[in-house]
Amino acid sequence: MNIVLLTAYDGTELCGWQIQTNGRTAQGEIERAIFSAFGRDARVTGSGRTDAGVHAAGQVCNFALPDEIRIRPERVADALNTYLPPDIRILESAAADEDFDACRTAKKKTYRYSIYFSRRENPLLERYAVRAGEVPDLMKMRACAYLLEGEHDFAAFSSTGSSVRTTVRTVYSIGFVPWPEESGQGISGMHVDVCGSGFLYNMVRILAGALLDVGTGRLALSAVEEALTAGNRELLGKTMPAKGLTLLSVDYGFPLFRR
Amino acid sequence: MNIVLLTAYDGTELCGWQIQTNGRTAQGEIERAIFSAFGRDARVTGSGRTDAGVHAAGQVCNFALPDEIRIRPERVADALNTYLPPDIRILESAAADEDFDACRTAKKKTYRYSIYFSRRENPLLERYAVRAGEVPDLMKMRACAYLLEGEHDFAAFSSTGSSVRTTVRTVYSIGFVPWPEESGQGISGMHVDVCGSGFLYNMVRILAGALLDVGTGRLALSAVEEALTAGNRELLGKTMPAKGLTLLSVDYGFPLFRR
Repeated sequence: MNIVLLTAYDGTELCGWQIQTNGRTAQGEIERAIFSAFGRDARVTGSGRTDAGVHAAGQVCNFALPDEIRIRPERVADALNTYLPPDIRILESAAADEDFDACRTAKKKTYRYSIYFSRRENPLLERYAVRAGEVPDLMKMRACAYLLEGEHDFAAFSSTGSSVRTTVRTVYSIGFVPWPEESGQGISGMHVDVCGSGFLYNMVRILAGALLDVGTGRLALSAVEEALTAGNRELLGKTMPAKGLTLLSVDYGFPLFRR
Repeated sequence: MNIVLLTAYDGTELCGWQIQTNGRTAQGEIERAIFSAFGRDARVTGSGRTDAGVHAAGQVCNFALPDEIRIRPERVADALNTYLPPDIRILESAAADEDFDACRTAKKKTYRYSIYFSRRENPLLERYAVRAGEVPDLMKMRACAYLLEGEHDFAAFSSTGSSVRTTVRTVYSIGFVPWPEESGQGISGMHVDVCGSGFLYNMVRILAGALLDVGTGRLALSAVEEALTAGNRELLGKTMPAKGLTLLSVDYGFPLFRR
Protein backbone atom coordinates (compact mmCIF):
# COMPACT_ATOMS: atom_id res chain seq x y z
CA MET A 1 0.00 0.00 0.00
CA ASN A 2 1.32 3.44 -0.98
CA ILE A 3 1.02 5.60 2.15
CA VAL A 4 1.14 9.40 1.98
CA LEU A 5 1.99 11.43 5.09
CA LEU A 6 1.47 15.09 5.99
CA THR A 7 4.31 16.00 8.36
CA ALA A 8 5.35 19.01 10.44
CA TYR A 9 8.72 19.58 12.03
CA ASP A 10 10.60 22.18 14.01
CA GLY A 11 13.86 22.39 12.07
CA THR A 12 15.89 24.11 14.82
CA GLU A 13 17.73 20.95 15.83
CA LEU A 14 17.49 19.01 12.57
CA CYS A 15 20.08 18.72 9.79
CA GLY A 16 17.26 19.22 7.28
CA TRP A 17 14.95 16.77 5.53
CA GLN A 18 17.33 14.47 3.67
CA ILE A 19 18.86 11.50 5.45
CA GLN A 20 22.59 11.66 6.12
CA THR A 21 25.12 9.64 8.04
CA ASN A 22 25.83 12.31 10.68
CA GLY A 23 23.03 14.16 12.42
CA ARG A 24 19.27 13.89 12.84
CA THR A 25 17.09 14.49 9.78
CA ALA A 26 13.31 14.42 9.32
CA GLN A 27 13.52 11.69 6.67
CA GLY A 28 15.86 9.62 8.80
CA GLU A 29 13.65 9.89 11.90
CA ILE A 30 10.51 8.95 9.93
CA GLU A 31 12.23 5.92 8.37
CA ARG A 32 13.39 4.87 11.83
CA ALA A 33 9.82 5.26 13.20
CA ILE A 34 8.48 3.09 10.33
CA PHE A 35 10.93 0.36 11.29
CA SER A 36 9.98 0.67 14.99
CA ALA A 37 6.24 0.61 14.28
CA PHE A 38 6.10 -2.05 11.54
CA GLY A 39 9.41 -3.91 11.68
CA ARG A 40 10.09 -3.12 8.04
CA ASP A 41 12.71 -0.99 6.28
CA ALA A 42 11.17 1.59 3.97
CA ARG A 43 12.53 4.40 1.85
CA VAL A 44 10.52 7.60 2.37
CA THR A 45 10.19 10.02 -0.57
CA GLY A 46 9.69 13.69 0.35
CA SER A 47 8.22 16.42 -1.86
CA GLY A 48 11.72 17.89 -1.79
CA ARG A 49 14.55 18.66 0.60
CA THR A 50 14.50 21.36 3.21
CA ASP A 51 17.82 22.70 4.51
CA ALA A 52 19.20 22.43 8.04
CA GLY A 53 17.25 24.74 10.35
CA VAL A 54 14.26 25.15 8.00
CA HIS A 55 10.83 24.29 9.46
CA ALA A 56 7.89 22.50 7.85
CA ALA A 57 4.20 22.96 8.61
CA GLY A 58 3.07 20.78 5.71
CA GLN A 59 5.82 18.65 4.17
CA VAL A 60 4.40 15.69 2.21
CA CYS A 61 6.09 12.31 1.80
CA ASN A 62 5.15 8.76 0.82
CA PHE A 63 6.41 5.23 1.31
CA ALA A 64 5.45 1.67 0.43
CA LEU A 65 3.93 -0.22 3.35
CA PRO A 66 4.11 -3.99 2.72
CA ASP A 67 0.64 -5.50 2.18
CA GLU A 68 1.04 -8.01 5.02
CA ILE A 69 0.92 -5.12 7.54
CA ARG A 70 -2.75 -4.77 8.44
CA ILE A 71 -3.53 -1.23 9.54
CA ARG A 72 -6.08 1.34 8.42
CA PRO A 73 -4.09 3.96 6.44
CA GLU A 74 -5.42 6.90 8.51
CA ARG A 75 -4.03 5.21 11.66
CA VAL A 76 -0.45 5.07 10.34
CA ALA A 77 0.04 8.66 11.64
CA ASP A 78 -0.64 7.63 15.25
CA ALA A 79 1.49 4.51 14.93
CA LEU A 80 4.48 6.57 13.74
CA ASN A 81 3.97 9.43 16.22
CA THR A 82 4.46 6.92 19.05
CA TYR A 83 8.07 6.52 17.94
CA LEU A 84 8.92 9.99 16.59
CA PRO A 85 10.89 12.59 18.60
CA PRO A 86 8.78 15.60 19.75
CA ASP A 87 10.12 17.95 17.06
CA ILE A 88 8.62 15.80 14.25
CA ARG A 89 4.97 14.79 13.93
CA ILE A 90 2.77 13.12 11.31
CA LEU A 91 -0.39 15.24 11.08
CA GLU A 92 -2.32 13.04 8.62
CA SER A 93 -1.89 9.73 6.81
CA ALA A 94 -3.85 8.18 3.95
CA ALA A 95 -3.63 5.64 1.13
CA ALA A 96 -2.52 7.05 -2.24
CA ASP A 97 -2.66 5.72 -5.79
CA GLU A 98 0.17 3.31 -6.60
CA ASP A 99 1.78 5.83 -8.99
CA PHE A 100 1.72 8.72 -6.50
CA ASP A 101 5.22 10.03 -5.81
CA ALA A 102 5.51 12.91 -3.30
CA CYS A 103 8.35 14.47 -5.31
CA ARG A 104 7.42 13.89 -8.96
CA THR A 105 3.64 14.40 -8.55
CA ALA A 106 4.07 17.80 -6.77
CA LYS A 107 2.64 20.75 -8.73
CA LYS A 108 3.28 23.77 -6.46
CA LYS A 109 4.96 24.51 -3.17
CA THR A 110 4.36 27.38 -0.77
CA TYR A 111 7.13 28.62 1.49
CA ARG A 112 6.74 31.26 4.20
CA TYR A 113 9.52 33.60 5.30
CA SER A 114 8.77 35.33 8.62
CA ILE A 115 10.25 38.69 9.63
CA TYR A 116 9.60 40.86 12.70
CA PHE A 117 10.45 44.51 13.12
CA SER A 118 12.10 45.55 16.33
CA ARG A 119 15.07 47.54 17.51
CA ARG A 120 16.04 44.66 19.83
CA GLU A 121 15.82 40.86 19.69
CA ASN A 122 12.72 39.25 21.17
CA PRO A 123 13.38 35.74 22.57
CA LEU A 124 9.74 34.69 22.01
CA LEU A 125 9.99 35.39 18.26
CA GLU A 126 13.57 34.34 17.49
CA ARG A 127 12.83 30.66 16.93
CA TYR A 128 10.64 30.96 13.82
CA ALA A 129 11.35 34.46 12.51
CA VAL A 130 14.20 36.83 11.76
CA ARG A 131 14.49 40.36 13.14
CA ALA A 132 14.74 43.43 10.93
CA GLY A 133 15.68 46.71 12.59
CA GLU A 134 13.63 48.79 10.17
CA VAL A 135 10.01 48.55 9.01
CA PRO A 136 10.08 48.18 5.20
CA ASP A 137 7.88 50.07 2.76
CA LEU A 138 5.25 47.55 1.69
CA MET A 139 4.53 49.37 -1.58
CA LYS A 140 8.18 49.00 -2.62
CA MET A 141 8.08 45.30 -1.65
CA ARG A 142 4.96 44.81 -3.76
CA ALA A 143 6.63 46.45 -6.75
CA CYS A 144 9.57 44.06 -6.35
CA ALA A 145 7.22 41.07 -5.99
CA TYR A 146 5.48 42.09 -9.22
CA LEU A 147 8.86 41.97 -10.95
CA LEU A 148 9.63 38.47 -9.64
CA GLU A 149 6.27 36.78 -10.17
CA GLY A 150 5.96 34.69 -13.34
CA GLU A 151 8.38 32.47 -15.28
CA HIS A 152 11.96 33.68 -15.08
CA ASP A 153 15.51 32.42 -15.09
CA PHE A 154 16.24 32.67 -11.35
CA ALA A 155 19.98 31.92 -11.65
CA ALA A 156 20.76 35.08 -9.59
CA PHE A 157 18.53 33.74 -6.80
CA SER A 158 20.49 30.56 -6.24
CA SER A 159 23.52 29.76 -4.14
CA THR A 160 26.49 28.43 -6.03
CA GLY A 161 27.30 24.77 -5.72
CA SER A 162 23.96 23.45 -6.93
CA SER A 163 23.87 21.65 -10.25
CA VAL A 164 20.47 21.72 -11.89
CA ARG A 165 19.36 21.16 -15.47
CA THR A 166 17.69 24.55 -15.73
CA THR A 167 17.42 27.61 -13.48
CA VAL A 168 14.07 28.63 -14.99
CA ARG A 169 11.24 28.47 -12.45
CA THR A 170 7.73 29.87 -12.17
CA VAL A 171 6.77 31.93 -9.13
CA TYR A 172 2.95 31.92 -9.09
CA SER A 173 2.52 34.45 -6.32
CA ILE A 174 4.29 36.42 -3.58
CA GLY A 175 1.96 37.48 -0.77
CA PHE A 176 2.58 39.66 2.27
CA VAL A 177 0.69 38.68 5.42
CA PRO A 178 0.97 41.22 8.24
CA TRP A 179 1.11 39.75 11.75
CA PRO A 180 -1.88 40.55 13.92
CA GLU A 181 -1.31 43.34 16.42
CA GLU A 182 0.01 41.94 19.68
CA SER A 183 -1.83 43.58 22.55
CA GLY A 184 0.33 46.32 23.96
CA GLN A 185 3.70 44.90 22.96
CA GLY A 186 3.97 47.03 19.85
CA ILE A 187 5.76 44.31 17.92
CA SER A 188 4.84 43.97 14.27
CA GLY A 189 6.00 41.64 11.57
CA MET A 190 5.08 40.02 8.28
CA HIS A 191 5.09 36.70 6.54
CA VAL A 192 6.30 36.61 2.96
CA ASP A 193 4.47 33.70 1.31
CA VAL A 194 6.00 32.48 -1.94
CA CYS A 195 4.18 29.95 -4.13
CA GLY A 196 6.05 28.41 -7.03
CA SER A 197 6.50 25.42 -9.30
CA GLY A 198 9.76 24.58 -7.57
CA PHE A 199 12.69 26.41 -6.07
CA LEU A 200 16.44 26.55 -6.58
CA TYR A 201 18.89 26.06 -3.71
CA ASN A 202 18.38 28.93 -1.18
CA MET A 203 16.04 30.67 -3.65
CA VAL A 204 13.31 31.67 -1.14
CA ARG A 205 15.87 32.93 1.38
CA ILE A 206 17.65 35.08 -1.24
CA LEU A 207 14.29 36.27 -2.59
CA ALA A 208 13.02 37.26 0.88
CA GLY A 209 16.26 39.16 1.52
CA ALA A 210 15.98 41.05 -1.79
CA LEU A 211 12.33 41.96 -1.07
CA LEU A 212 13.28 43.24 2.40
CA ASP A 213 16.27 45.19 1.07
CA VAL A 214 14.12 46.84 -1.59
CA GLY A 215 11.53 47.66 1.10
CA THR A 216 14.11 49.39 3.31
CA GLY A 217 15.81 51.16 0.39
CA ARG A 218 19.11 49.28 0.70
CA LEU A 219 18.60 47.77 -2.77
CA ALA A 220 17.21 49.50 -5.86
CA LEU A 221 14.42 47.87 -7.82
CA SER A 222 16.57 48.30 -10.92
CA ALA A 223 19.31 46.19 -9.32
CA VAL A 224 16.85 43.32 -8.81
CA GLU A 225 15.77 43.67 -12.44
CA GLU A 226 19.40 43.61 -13.56
CA ALA A 227 20.22 40.61 -11.36
CA LEU A 228 17.29 38.74 -12.89
CA THR A 229 18.33 39.60 -16.47
CA ALA A 230 22.06 39.06 -16.00
CA GLY A 231 21.75 36.05 -13.67
CA ASN A 232 24.16 37.82 -11.31
CA ARG A 233 23.95 36.69 -7.66
CA GLU A 234 26.45 39.42 -6.65
CA LEU A 235 23.89 42.19 -7.23
CA LEU A 236 21.64 40.89 -4.45
CA GLY A 237 22.03 40.92 -0.66
CA LYS A 238 22.96 38.02 1.53
CA THR A 239 20.99 34.78 2.00
CA MET A 240 18.54 35.16 4.93
CA PRO A 241 18.89 32.73 7.91
CA ALA A 242 17.25 29.28 7.71
CA LYS A 243 15.18 29.66 10.91
CA GLY A 244 12.82 32.23 9.30
CA LEU A 245 11.78 29.76 6.58
CA THR A 246 8.89 27.29 6.78
CA LEU A 247 7.59 24.93 4.08
CA LEU A 248 3.87 25.66 4.41
CA SER A 249 2.25 23.31 1.92
CA VAL A 250 2.66 21.21 -1.19
CA ASP A 251 -0.08 21.25 -3.81
CA TYR A 252 -0.72 18.12 -5.91
CA GLY A 253 -3.77 19.43 -7.74
CA PHE A 254 -6.06 17.09 -5.75
CA PRO A 255 -6.72 16.55 -2.03
CA LEU A 256 -4.52 13.93 -0.38
CA PHE A 257 -6.41 13.67 2.90
CA ARG A 258 -10.10 13.60 3.62
CA ARG A 259 -11.09 15.97 6.44
CA MET B 1 19.36 56.08 39.54
CA ASN B 2 16.25 53.88 39.63
CA ILE B 3 16.26 51.94 36.36
CA VAL B 4 13.11 50.21 35.06
CA LEU B 5 13.39 47.40 32.49
CA LEU B 6 10.88 45.84 30.10
CA THR B 7 11.97 42.23 29.65
CA ALA B 8 10.92 39.23 27.57
CA TYR B 9 11.91 35.64 28.11
CA ASP B 10 11.27 32.18 26.73
CA GLY B 11 10.52 30.22 29.91
CA THR B 12 11.06 26.75 28.42
CA GLU B 13 14.47 26.26 29.99
CA LEU B 14 14.12 28.61 32.96
CA CYS B 15 13.20 27.75 36.55
CA GLY B 16 10.89 30.78 36.56
CA TRP B 17 11.48 34.41 37.46
CA GLN B 18 12.66 34.27 41.05
CA ILE B 19 16.32 33.67 41.82
CA GLN B 20 17.18 30.33 43.41
CA THR B 21 20.33 28.44 44.27
CA ASN B 22 19.81 25.64 41.73
CA GLY B 23 18.85 26.37 38.15
CA ARG B 24 18.69 29.33 35.80
CA THR B 25 16.10 32.03 36.51
CA ALA B 26 15.26 35.29 34.73
CA GLN B 27 15.99 37.39 37.83
CA GLY B 28 19.26 35.57 38.45
CA GLU B 29 20.44 36.01 34.86
CA ILE B 30 19.55 39.73 34.84
CA GLU B 31 21.39 40.31 38.15
CA ARG B 32 24.39 38.48 36.73
CA ALA B 33 24.28 40.65 33.55
CA ILE B 34 24.17 43.81 35.70
CA PHE B 35 27.30 42.66 37.49
CA SER B 36 29.03 41.85 34.18
CA ALA B 37 28.06 45.16 32.57
CA PHE B 38 28.61 47.54 35.51
CA GLY B 39 30.73 45.63 38.04
CA ARG B 40 28.12 46.17 40.75
CA ASP B 41 25.83 43.83 42.66
CA ALA B 42 22.17 44.82 42.41
CA ARG B 43 18.91 43.30 43.59
CA VAL B 44 16.31 43.30 40.82
CA THR B 45 12.63 43.67 41.81
CA GLY B 46 10.14 42.07 39.41
CA SER B 47 6.43 42.91 39.08
CA GLY B 48 5.87 39.43 40.47
CA ARG B 49 7.07 35.88 40.04
CA THR B 50 6.41 33.67 37.06
CA ASP B 51 6.62 29.89 37.49
CA ALA B 52 9.08 27.52 35.85
CA GLY B 53 8.21 27.13 32.16
CA VAL B 54 6.06 30.28 31.99
CA HIS B 55 7.02 32.85 29.33
CA ALA B 56 7.04 36.65 29.49
CA ALA B 57 6.50 39.12 26.66
CA GLY B 58 6.40 42.13 28.98
CA GLN B 59 7.71 41.48 32.49
CA VAL B 60 8.73 44.70 34.26
CA CYS B 61 11.48 45.01 36.88
CA ASN B 62 13.62 47.72 38.43
CA PHE B 63 16.96 48.07 40.19
CA ALA B 64 19.16 50.80 41.68
CA LEU B 65 22.10 51.70 39.46
CA PRO B 66 24.80 53.50 41.49
CA ASP B 67 25.14 57.16 40.50
CA GLU B 68 28.84 56.83 39.69
CA ILE B 69 27.94 54.64 36.66
CA ARG B 70 27.58 57.11 33.79
CA ILE B 71 25.20 55.73 31.15
CA ARG B 72 22.09 57.06 29.48
CA PRO B 73 19.17 55.08 31.00
CA GLU B 74 17.79 54.04 27.60
CA ARG B 75 21.17 52.42 26.77
CA VAL B 76 21.12 50.12 29.83
CA ALA B 77 19.06 47.64 27.75
CA ASP B 78 21.82 47.21 25.17
CA ALA B 79 24.51 47.01 27.86
CA LEU B 80 22.66 44.15 29.60
CA ASN B 81 21.70 42.32 26.38
CA THR B 82 25.41 41.92 25.62
CA TYR B 83 25.69 39.62 28.64
CA LEU B 84 22.26 37.93 28.74
CA PRO B 85 21.67 34.41 27.38
CA PRO B 86 19.55 34.30 24.16
CA ASP B 87 16.33 33.24 25.93
CA ILE B 88 16.21 36.51 27.94
CA ARG B 89 16.24 40.03 26.49
CA ILE B 90 15.72 43.58 27.79
CA LEU B 91 13.36 45.27 25.32
CA GLU B 92 13.42 48.77 26.86
CA SER B 93 15.12 50.61 29.72
CA ALA B 94 14.42 54.00 31.29
CA ALA B 95 14.88 56.06 34.44
CA ALA B 96 12.00 55.86 36.92
CA ASP B 97 11.00 57.98 39.93
CA GLU B 98 12.94 57.08 43.07
CA ASP B 99 9.81 55.63 44.72
CA PHE B 100 8.91 53.41 41.76
CA ASP B 101 8.81 49.72 42.75
CA ALA B 102 7.97 47.23 39.96
CA CYS B 103 6.05 45.05 42.42
CA ARG B 104 4.26 47.48 44.74
CA THR B 105 3.48 50.14 42.10
CA ALA B 106 1.83 47.60 39.72
CA LYS B 107 -1.88 48.18 39.14
CA LYS B 108 -2.91 45.44 36.69
CA LYS B 109 -1.35 42.46 34.97
CA THR B 110 -2.39 40.73 31.78
CA TYR B 111 -1.64 37.07 31.23
CA ARG B 112 -2.27 35.13 28.02
CA TYR B 113 -3.06 31.41 27.89
CA SER B 114 -2.68 29.93 24.39
CA ILE B 115 -4.55 26.85 23.18
CA TYR B 116 -4.66 25.21 19.75
CA PHE B 117 -7.20 22.73 18.50
CA SER B 118 -5.93 19.67 16.72
CA ARG B 119 -6.37 15.93 16.79
CA ARG B 120 -2.57 15.52 16.81
CA GLU B 121 0.36 17.45 18.28
CA ASN B 122 2.00 20.06 16.07
CA PRO B 123 5.72 20.54 16.82
CA LEU B 124 5.65 24.16 15.56
CA LEU B 125 2.98 25.12 18.12
CA GLU B 126 3.97 23.01 21.15
CA ARG B 127 6.50 25.47 22.56
CA TYR B 128 4.11 28.32 23.43
CA ALA B 129 0.68 26.71 23.42
CA VAL B 130 -1.20 23.67 24.66
CA ARG B 131 -3.20 21.32 22.44
CA ALA B 132 -6.89 20.63 22.96
CA GLY B 133 -8.43 17.76 21.01
CA GLU B 134 -11.80 19.43 20.76
CA VAL B 135 -12.87 22.92 19.61
CA PRO B 136 -14.72 24.52 22.54
CA ASP B 137 -18.01 26.41 22.30
CA LEU B 138 -17.02 30.08 22.56
CA MET B 139 -20.48 31.13 23.80
CA LYS B 140 -20.18 28.77 26.76
CA MET B 141 -16.67 30.11 27.47
CA ARG B 142 -17.98 33.68 27.40
CA ALA B 143 -20.74 32.78 29.86
CA CYS B 144 -18.12 31.32 32.20
CA ALA B 145 -15.88 34.40 31.76
CA TYR B 146 -18.83 36.61 32.70
CA LEU B 147 -19.17 34.62 35.92
CA LEU B 148 -15.48 35.05 36.80
CA GLU B 149 -14.99 38.72 35.94
CA GLY B 150 -15.18 41.14 38.87
CA GLU B 151 -14.09 40.96 42.51
CA HIS B 152 -14.35 37.44 43.94
CA ASP B 153 -12.76 35.13 46.45
CA PHE B 154 -10.70 32.99 44.06
CA ALA B 155 -9.66 30.42 46.72
CA ALA B 156 -10.89 27.59 44.45
CA PHE B 157 -8.59 28.86 41.69
CA SER B 158 -5.40 28.49 43.66
CA SER B 159 -3.03 25.58 44.19
CA THR B 160 -2.53 24.52 47.79
CA GLY B 161 0.75 25.39 49.43
CA SER B 162 0.53 29.14 48.91
CA SER B 163 0.07 31.31 51.98
CA VAL B 164 -1.51 34.65 51.19
CA ARG B 165 -3.28 37.20 53.36
CA THR B 166 -6.44 37.16 51.26
CA THR B 167 -7.66 35.13 48.28
CA VAL B 168 -9.89 37.97 47.07
CA ARG B 169 -8.79 39.31 43.68
CA THR B 170 -10.34 41.41 40.93
CA VAL B 171 -10.43 40.07 37.38
CA TYR B 172 -11.02 43.12 35.17
CA SER B 173 -11.54 41.24 31.93
CA ILE B 174 -11.25 37.88 30.20
CA GLY B 175 -10.89 38.16 26.43
CA PHE B 176 -10.80 35.48 23.74
CA VAL B 177 -8.54 36.22 20.78
CA PRO B 178 -8.92 33.74 17.89
CA TRP B 179 -5.72 32.89 16.02
CA PRO B 180 -5.59 34.08 12.44
CA GLU B 181 -6.29 31.40 9.85
CA GLU B 182 -3.08 29.70 8.80
CA SER B 183 -3.05 29.27 5.03
CA GLY B 184 -4.08 25.76 4.19
CA GLN B 185 -2.99 24.08 7.41
CA GLY B 186 -6.45 24.17 8.95
CA ILE B 187 -5.08 24.71 12.45
CA SER B 188 -7.04 27.02 14.69
CA GLY B 189 -6.50 28.20 18.21
CA MET B 190 -7.26 30.94 20.70
CA HIS B 191 -5.57 33.10 23.26
CA VAL B 192 -7.35 33.58 26.57
CA ASP B 193 -6.25 37.01 27.85
CA VAL B 194 -6.89 37.60 31.55
CA CYS B 195 -6.40 41.06 33.07
CA GLY B 196 -6.51 41.37 36.85
CA SER B 197 -5.32 43.25 39.91
CA GLY B 198 -3.13 40.32 40.85
CA PHE B 199 -3.24 36.55 40.72
CA LEU B 200 -3.02 33.67 43.17
CA TYR B 201 -0.59 30.79 42.69
CA ASN B 202 -1.54 28.93 39.46
CA MET B 203 -4.73 31.02 39.19
CA VAL B 204 -4.57 31.78 35.44
CA ARG B 205 -3.72 28.16 34.60
CA ILE B 206 -6.64 26.80 36.65
CA LEU B 207 -8.93 29.50 35.25
CA ALA B 208 -7.94 28.70 31.63
CA GLY B 209 -8.59 25.01 32.29
CA ALA B 210 -12.04 25.71 33.75
CA LEU B 211 -12.95 27.94 30.79
CA LEU B 212 -11.84 25.25 28.33
CA ASP B 213 -13.67 22.50 30.23
CA VAL B 214 -16.88 24.54 30.26
CA GLY B 215 -16.43 25.20 26.52
CA THR B 216 -16.12 21.50 25.72
CA GLY B 217 -18.94 20.48 28.08
CA ARG B 218 -16.70 18.55 30.49
CA LEU B 219 -17.55 21.00 33.29
CA ALA B 220 -20.94 22.56 34.05
CA LEU B 221 -21.21 26.30 34.50
CA SER B 222 -22.98 25.61 37.81
CA ALA B 223 -19.91 23.71 39.04
CA VAL B 224 -17.71 26.76 38.41
CA GLU B 225 -20.25 28.90 40.26
CA GLU B 226 -20.24 26.44 43.17
CA ALA B 227 -16.42 26.26 43.23
CA LEU B 228 -16.28 30.05 43.41
CA THR B 229 -18.83 30.24 46.23
CA ALA B 230 -17.51 27.31 48.24
CA GLY B 231 -13.82 27.97 47.58
CA ASN B 232 -13.49 24.32 46.56
CA ARG B 233 -10.54 23.56 44.25
CA GLU B 234 -11.74 19.94 43.86
CA LEU B 235 -14.74 20.99 41.74
CA LEU B 236 -12.48 22.27 38.97
CA GLY B 237 -10.28 20.44 36.46
CA LYS B 238 -6.53 20.13 36.56
CA THR B 239 -4.00 22.97 36.35
CA MET B 240 -3.04 23.60 32.70
CA PRO B 241 0.68 23.23 31.70
CA ALA B 242 3.06 26.15 32.28
CA LYS B 243 4.24 26.40 28.65
CA GLY B 244 0.86 27.78 27.44
CA LEU B 245 1.12 30.79 29.78
CA THR B 246 2.75 34.14 28.95
CA LEU B 247 2.88 37.30 31.08
CA LEU B 248 1.89 39.83 28.43
CA SER B 249 2.09 43.16 30.23
CA VAL B 250 2.07 45.00 33.54
CA ASP B 251 0.08 48.22 33.86
CA TYR B 252 1.30 50.95 36.25
CA GLY B 253 -1.29 53.56 35.31
CA PHE B 254 1.34 55.64 33.49
CA PRO B 255 3.79 54.97 30.64
CA LEU B 256 7.21 53.68 31.74
CA PHE B 257 8.97 54.01 28.41
CA ARG B 258 8.87 56.75 25.81
CA ARG B 259 8.49 55.39 22.28
